[in-house]
Amino acid sequence: MFDLESLGQNAVQASYGLARLSEQEKNKVLLHVADALVAQSKRILQGNEKDILAAKENGIREAMIDRLSLTKERIEGMAEGIRQIAALPDPVGEVLETFERPNGLQISKVRVPLGVVGIIYESRPNVTADAFGLCFKAGNAVILKGGKEAIHTNIAIVDVIRQAIRDMEKEFRLDEHVIGLITDTSREVTNAFMKLKQYVDVLIPRGGAGLISAVVENSTIPVIETGTGNCHIYVDEYADMEKAVPIIVNAKTQRVSVCNTCESLVVHEAVAEKFLPLLQKAMAEKKVELRGDADCLRILPDLTEATEEDFMTEYLDYILSMKTVSSVEEAIEHINRCSTKHSEAIITESEEHANQFLQGISSACVYVNASTRFTDGFEFGFGAEIGISNQKLHARGPMGLREMTTYQYRIKGNGQIRC
Amino acid sequence: MFDLESLGQNAVQASYGLARLSEQEKNKVLLHVADALVAQSKRILQGNEKDILAAKENGIREAMIDRLSLTKERIEGMAEGIRQIAALPDPVGEVLETFERPNGLQISKVRVPLGVVGIIYESRPNVTADAFGLCFKAGNAVILKGGKEAIHTNIAIVDVIRQAIRDMEKEFRLDEHVIGLITDTSREVTNAFMKLKQYVDVLIPRGGAGLISAVVENSTIPVIETGTGNCHIYVDEYADMEKAVPIIVNAKTQRVSVCNTCESLVVHEAVAEKFLPLLQKAMAEKKVELRGDADCLRILPDLTEATEEDFMTEYLDYILSMKTVSSVEEAIEHINRCSTKHSEAIITESEEHANQFLQGISSACVYVNASTRFTDGFEFGFGAEIGISNQKLHARGPMGLREMTTYQYRIKGNGQIRC
Repeated sequence: MFDLESLGQNAVQASYGLARLSEQEKNKVLLHVADALVAQSKRILQGNEKDILAAKENGIREAMIDRLSLTKERIEGMAEGIRQIAALPDPVGEVLETFERPNGLQISKVRVPLGVVGIIYESRPNVTADAFGLCFKAGNAVILKGGKEAIHTNIAIVDVIRQAIRDMEKEFRLDEHVIGLITDTSREVTNAFMKLKQYVDVLIPRGGAGLISAVVENSTIPVIETGTGNCHIYVDEYADMEKAVPIIVNAKTQRVSVCNTCESLVVHEAVAEKFLPLLQKAMAEKKVELRGDADCLRILPDLTEATEEDFMTEYLDYILSMKTVSSVEEAIEHINRCSTKHSEAIITESEEHANQFLQGISSACVYVNASTRFTDGFEFGFGAEIGISNQKLHARGPMGLREMTTYQYRIKGNGQIRC
Repeated sequence: MFDLESLGQNAVQASYGLARLSEQEKNKVLLHVADALVAQSKRILQGNEKDILAAKENGIREAMIDRLSLTKERIEGMAEGIRQIAALPDPVGEVLETFERPNGLQISKVRVPLGVVGIIYESRPNVTADAFGLCFKAGNAVILKGGKEAIHTNIAIVDVIRQAIRDMEKEFRLDEHVIGLITDTSREVTNAFMKLKQYVDVLIPRGGAGLISAVVENSTIPVIETGTGNCHIYVDEYADMEKAVPIIVNAKTQRVSVCNTCESLVVHEAVAEKFLPLLQKAMAEKKVELRGDADCLRILPDLTEATEEDFMTEYLDYILSMKTVSSVEEAIEHINRCSTKHSEAIITESEEHANQFLQGISSACVYVNASTRFTDGFEFGFGAEIGISNQKLHARGPMGLREMTTYQYRIKGNGQIRC
């Protein structure tokens, strides 16, 4: 069986060395890695070719083969992503707070790396380079487990990164095990990886709902869940229709397959009669199917009826469910019950209703008069993100470099003992 | 079977109402609960009597019966604890950060409650009131699962708290389900509780290593681990012996059964010959058994030899393991390998070594010239704590009110859509 134990031990060991590196040193390594990816692109493309061939033999569908496929340009894109990470400020060492106790103890709360981060993902080879870059810059060793369809590509990418790190090993006392790849993609090894709690500090699944729930179910390592978004927009009785329609069209159709897309509308009954026909017209142009509750159907009789299942569904498709409510409280209650705590928006000109909505909704990101599509590391100004968390613990919303760290209390005394 | 589903749903519903309460309103409820605990102490003592009787019948040992036993004074202590929580500042609503994006979006990061917190604990009935108080003040509903030995006591305490909340129900639109108790203490129900992910946002086990690992193993809810501490003190070659000996005596013996007690010493070989006899003398007075590696044995030949198992053990007893090292790097390496990431200290007059230690140790709390016993909510100035976290995610070290919250991004726009 694949030797997870050594992989874990080596990653922990490497993480201690990495935690000592300065920002300048880390950036120098990242830039060298970026250059190496471009310089060695032929080798990566050779690995990728094997995967594509196998995928075609196994009858894997076109869309998936496209996601799996690398080109010279895509590899340059990966390298560019790593250069962008190098340009972001280093979160490690930031002093979050300092305070002195009456007994003279000086306490400071300092941002430090998490340690070893595990990433389980599907078949997008760009995740391999991305995840390494973000983890490395935040001072973490990373252990990667990618989809089996991309195994030869991943082996090549990791080999290139490791070689680049070995080039700088002596200069920085750096250990190539800051990146590890699980090359045995069997279910057995994957399950054992999820229990490698002794060495791995946090596990982040990146992929569809099935992957995420399998990780949550099996992992004993603390998990950060990312990515499921059943996002709502509430059109309040005081909504400006000129804002509402373009925001909803954007949130639903600008990119339907991503987690911050709007999946469900909640409409105040006082404006439904005016608003729904406007929306229907705009959505027809985008070929979005509308499904509504009984009240919506009275206004737009040709709609399909939305079921309870619709309200709980992240379509990731050109479909939008709609429900009417008689108050902002009812809207909040419905959204809190059905949402996945990702991103929700209210369209209103009433400051009172806006504040009620902001305070009442328990999701990671709550918007007033803007599209839910802004829940994104770049849009928030964090730069590249490892994912969008929709759990309550540790980090919520877009997870950039800061979210890949933890903190440590450093306490300086001069002989204090506890009475 | 016990209806966990309703318990969970009710707690979620109650948590939304609680999140709307102001600091003043929450404090008023807490003070009323404190008064009610004292006023209804007879009822609580009756429940406790049943548990004590059953415990004696079941031959439970004296120390455990003592932990289980309540008196009028202990109930007053519980009420006082809740009054102290009422006096602490409310973390909810704190604006952690605000920033504006080039497109005009105004983003603020605001502290919000976690939602529903589950606590699994053993047979200390004071945890019931404590955990409620901390969760309530931070705006969270709580679901409690205490040890079966304390079930009648817990039922009485929760009944009294719920009655007190019902007294104020109308005034504050408050729901008694902000506190829930699992009255079926069977393993089956406990296991099902650990999978109640749909309703419970975070699960905190409070108890021994066995309880914690059972929760980590079985829970699909995100867990915050608390309490295991294999804490180290490193006596550097530049240590001031006049500080080292009292700090170590304090850290080892001031209270041996708690998680921030020192379990293991690391001594630089350059000072071992001078230091170890001083330590042996001081520790003999406190009846602490010393166990050392080969180098320690050469200096103090009558010691027991410390094995690898000793170095990995949280004794919680009058025993101390000791190892010599030849550098601060070696000390850091040994501690990072053996510690449970709780609290470690260096005794040194060298600022360079102190900084090396602070930066090299990956534990939650790292001390220079002070006792590890200070890792505690009150000692840090946080007030009451729900536990001391020794994991990397979300919260590390003493967990007070702030650590019982999460954050939310609130984004105000005026019609922004994503291009």
